[in-house]
Amino acid sequence: METHPSVQTDDGYKYELVKRNITSAIDNGVLLSGDRIPSLRAMSRKSQVSVSTVMKAYLDLEMEGRVESRPQSGFYVRNKIRIFPAPQISNPELKPTPVDSFHFHFDILNAMAETNIVPLGAATPSPEFLPVAELTRLIRQASLSHENPYGYEEIPGNRKLRAQIAYHMLEAGVSAHLDDIIITNGGSEALYIALSTLAGPGDTVAVESPCYFGYLHILETLGISALEIPTDPNIGVDIGALSKALETYKIKACILQPNFNNPFGCLTPDKKKQQLSELFSSHNIPLIEDDIVGDLPFSGVRPHAITSFPNNGNIIYISSFSKMLAPGFRIGWIHSGYHRDALLKSKMAVSLNSNRPAQLALANYLSTGRYSKHLKNYTVKCRKQVDLVSSAVEKFFPTNTRLTRPEGGFLLWAVMPKDINTDILYAKALAEGIGIAPGSIFTSQNRYRNCIRLSCAHPYSDKIEFSLKRLGELAEE
Amino acid sequence: METHPSVQTDDGYKYELVKRNITSAIDNGVLLSGDRIPSLRAMSRKSQVSVSTVMKAYLDLEMEGRVESRPQSGFYVRNKIRIFPAPQISNPELKPTPVDSFHFHFDILNAMAETNIVPLGAATPSPEFLPVAELTRLIRQASLSHENPYGYEEIPGNRKLRAQIAYHMLEAGVSAHLDDIIITNGGSEALYIALSTLAGPGDTVAVESPCYFGYLHILETLGISALEIPTDPNIGVDIGALSKALETYKIKACILQPNFNNPFGCLTPDKKKQQLSELFSSHNIPLIEDDIVGDLPFSGVRPHAITSFPNNGNIIYISSFSKMLAPGFRIGWIHSGYHRDALLKSKMAVSLNSNRPAQLALANYLSTGRYSKHLKNYTVKCRKQVDLVSSAVEKFFPTNTRLTRPEGGFLLWAVMPKDINTDILYAKALAEGIGIAPGSIFTSQNRYRNCIRLSCAHPYSDKIEFSLKRLGELAEE
Repeated sequence: METHPSVQTDDGYKYELVKRNITSAIDNGVLLSGDRIPSLRAMSRKSQVSVSTVMKAYLDLEMEGRVESRPQSGFYVRNKIRIFPAPQISNPELKPTPVDSFHFHFDILNAMAETNIVPLGAATPSPEFLPVAELTRLIRQASLSHENPYGYEEIPGNRKLRAQIAYHMLEAGVSAHLDDIIITNGGSEALYIALSTLAGPGDTVAVESPCYFGYLHILETLGISALEIPTDPNIGVDIGALSKALETYKIKACILQPNFNNPFGCLTPDKKKQQLSELFSSHNIPLIEDDIVGDLPFSGVRPHAITSFPNNGNIIYISSFSKMLAPGFRIGWIHSGYHRDALLKSKMAVSLNSNRPAQLALANYLSTGRYSKHLKNYTVKCRKQVDLVSSAVEKFFPTNTRLTRPEGGFLLWAVMPKDINTDILYAKALAEGIGIAPGSIFTSQNRYRNCIRLSCAHPYSDKIEFSLKRLGELAEE
Repeated sequence: METHPSVQTDDGYKYELVKRNITSAIDNGVLLSGDRIPSLRAMSRKSQVSVSTVMKAYLDLEMEGRVESRPQSGFYVRNKIRIFPAPQISNPELKPTPVDSFHFHFDILNAMAETNIVPLGAATPSPEFLPVAELTRLIRQASLSHENPYGYEEIPGNRKLRAQIAYHMLEAGVSAHLDDIIITNGGSEALYIALSTLAGPGDTVAVESPCYFGYLHILETLGISALEIPTDPNIGVDIGALSKALETYKIKACILQPNFNNPFGCLTPDKKKQQLSELFSSHNIPLIEDDIVGDLPFSGVRPHAITSFPNNGNIIYISSFSKMLAPGFRIGWIHSGYHRDALLKSKMAVSLNSNRPAQLALANYLSTGRYSKHLKNYTVKCRKQVDLVSSAVEKFFPTNTRLTRPEGGFLLWAVMPKDINTDILYAKALAEGIGIAPGSIFTSQNRYRNCIRLSCAHPYSDKIEFSLKRLGELAEE
């Protein structure tokens, strides 16, 4: 016999209700892996049931593997048990390689920018996740209140925006002076300026392997060779291999992305960041630290930058608002370390200064204090999309696939069985209107041809799920 | 005995009235040098006086040197007889010179960007001359109607804007395909991309002498030597010297600004443009044609670009909206000639793409058709400011000064007596809150130290007049 829930009021029923509420919140993606579930006291109050009954329900859920207790902290949604193992540490050839594949990849990069394909390729956030309406309002407000809203901005960038950025960088543990900040046309120009200032034709720059293809294009344009360093999809660059490379070759600079690197999404632990800082300082080799998605930590704790650890000033830190607020504003920045004058001169030669209305709007947006709240909501959304895409990949991709477990950002890296060529998969998928980034563009060597990077920065939908299913089918072909 | 004007109605009086109206219109800057005054018939109708009486008044004005008749065309305000002669052709040393003065000029360039100084230094138009309110409206409109207004733009730039630019380039006689147009972060990035694509460290690029200091900064940043070509302040670069240079040295590219070059403001005649086009085609040396103020002809006739004459496709044409509509938008463009692929790859490495809301607003603005009218009004204003500043310079500057007679744009170049050092004048003027551009920054050689460039793109005022007077006094010191 069925009983109407409202009729059954005894603790036995409520105990089931508590369990069911938590379970369905997890199943529906309301509570995500790593989320804290309501405290015993809060749940007791909310469900009008004794603390001990809630405790019994929570312990049951823990037994079932849905949640886990953490001492002195409470109960947390347990990380989903992934079927696919994480990829292994990469194993590139440890020697400088000239970069010359731009012409192969040019069409791929152009195709990724297409708007009418399923957006699993480009690392571009959906406008649904960004405060578009608020920025529109702020641009207008800034234009109406500024005496010369479309005049040239100061060469290092809008002073108020630089002050807001310096304040924001405290989150990454960096005490920045606004004079050390240079506004750039997105992270791309920041990277270009840093690299062209530090190295030239015939030089060598060390990068993670695999790494963001944009690094490689800049290196190719500048005639610089890449030295790819083995990188662990769980904890980032291999320090041993990096040390060896620094001792073996004349390396003009190194680019690292310690926080949720592209494409792995992994977090380099603090201890290791400190070691890296010491390593570069002791060799006095410039580090370019790319912290472009450091603001999107799934744990909720904003990780520190390498720049925040003691160093000799030979670090150029770069970041951008492109992944956080407005890709098309093309506003990024450099924290210059002791290279300030050289970088500023380069900025002046490359583009003089950056778009003023976008800078005014961002300065106003950051000063409202709403950025932290946006980042928090946005991170939860990214984490949820990554979870959902991961589950679909495990469901649809070939059995022996390996898949990263990113700790922030919105990217996934899948390593498929060796016999799958993702350049071909890319072309087949594109023909069906599905965009992915094939592994070959993330290296200067002949590698990662069985890998793809998936971007999860768009709301999960039937279309995306269907596309992931099709990718699995196409890969199996 | 005084008579009240309205009482005196005979032709004798009206004849005086016609004369007085024209004279005061000229004196008040309503009619400018080169303007056509009303036709005989129109003035006759307007003043209710016979055509022959108007003719008598006009002939009187011609006798007085205020107007001049042109056959089959009518009467025109006569060009003011300038007291100061035009500068002579420049005489730089015709050999490649490494550029290494950026560090000297850095403070000057920064100071020019200051907003609290009298703006005679920077070549930046006053917001009063630009359609600021309309652009604000169009940015908002574009942001509200676009599905992803702050997303990444296509790498070559917004398609609609490129189409509008291609259409606009017909004015300069160039039939451009929108696929050959690449949107850049202002003219600066366009120049940087063109130069870095065509030449590298140790190479030589030919430029006019004097030339826009921005060229020199880019050359210095790229390690390229400048070969300065003698340039005539009336008709532009010296073709004989240029031919000789092309035959004597290995020149990787040449930058020319045939339409109202910076700092002379002179117009290269069509015949000469054709010769230049032939010269570069026959040597197959790339020409970078900078046409950034070609839209501001004092004659009212938009001059042709060198690109419009028959050539072998080895011309990169660049321009920008920075001087015409919105400096702070940082939107310029390249018409790529046959270098398209290389330039597009460079653009991608340098900054990926350009600010989308600015591109959307400009595309909408150009499609309204109001750009032509704006340019017409704006050109009249520039011409008027140039006239007024020229008169003040003749009044206040040392007797043996020479002064350019620009045919478009808003810049003046004054060559003062040899013993005046304008680096010192610059510093003294800046200390009094007056900004000028000293001649030394327009060359890679030790030249032009008795010259200054004056920008006339702000409404003439007592403050500007007083500043010009002070400049004269400081120069005499």
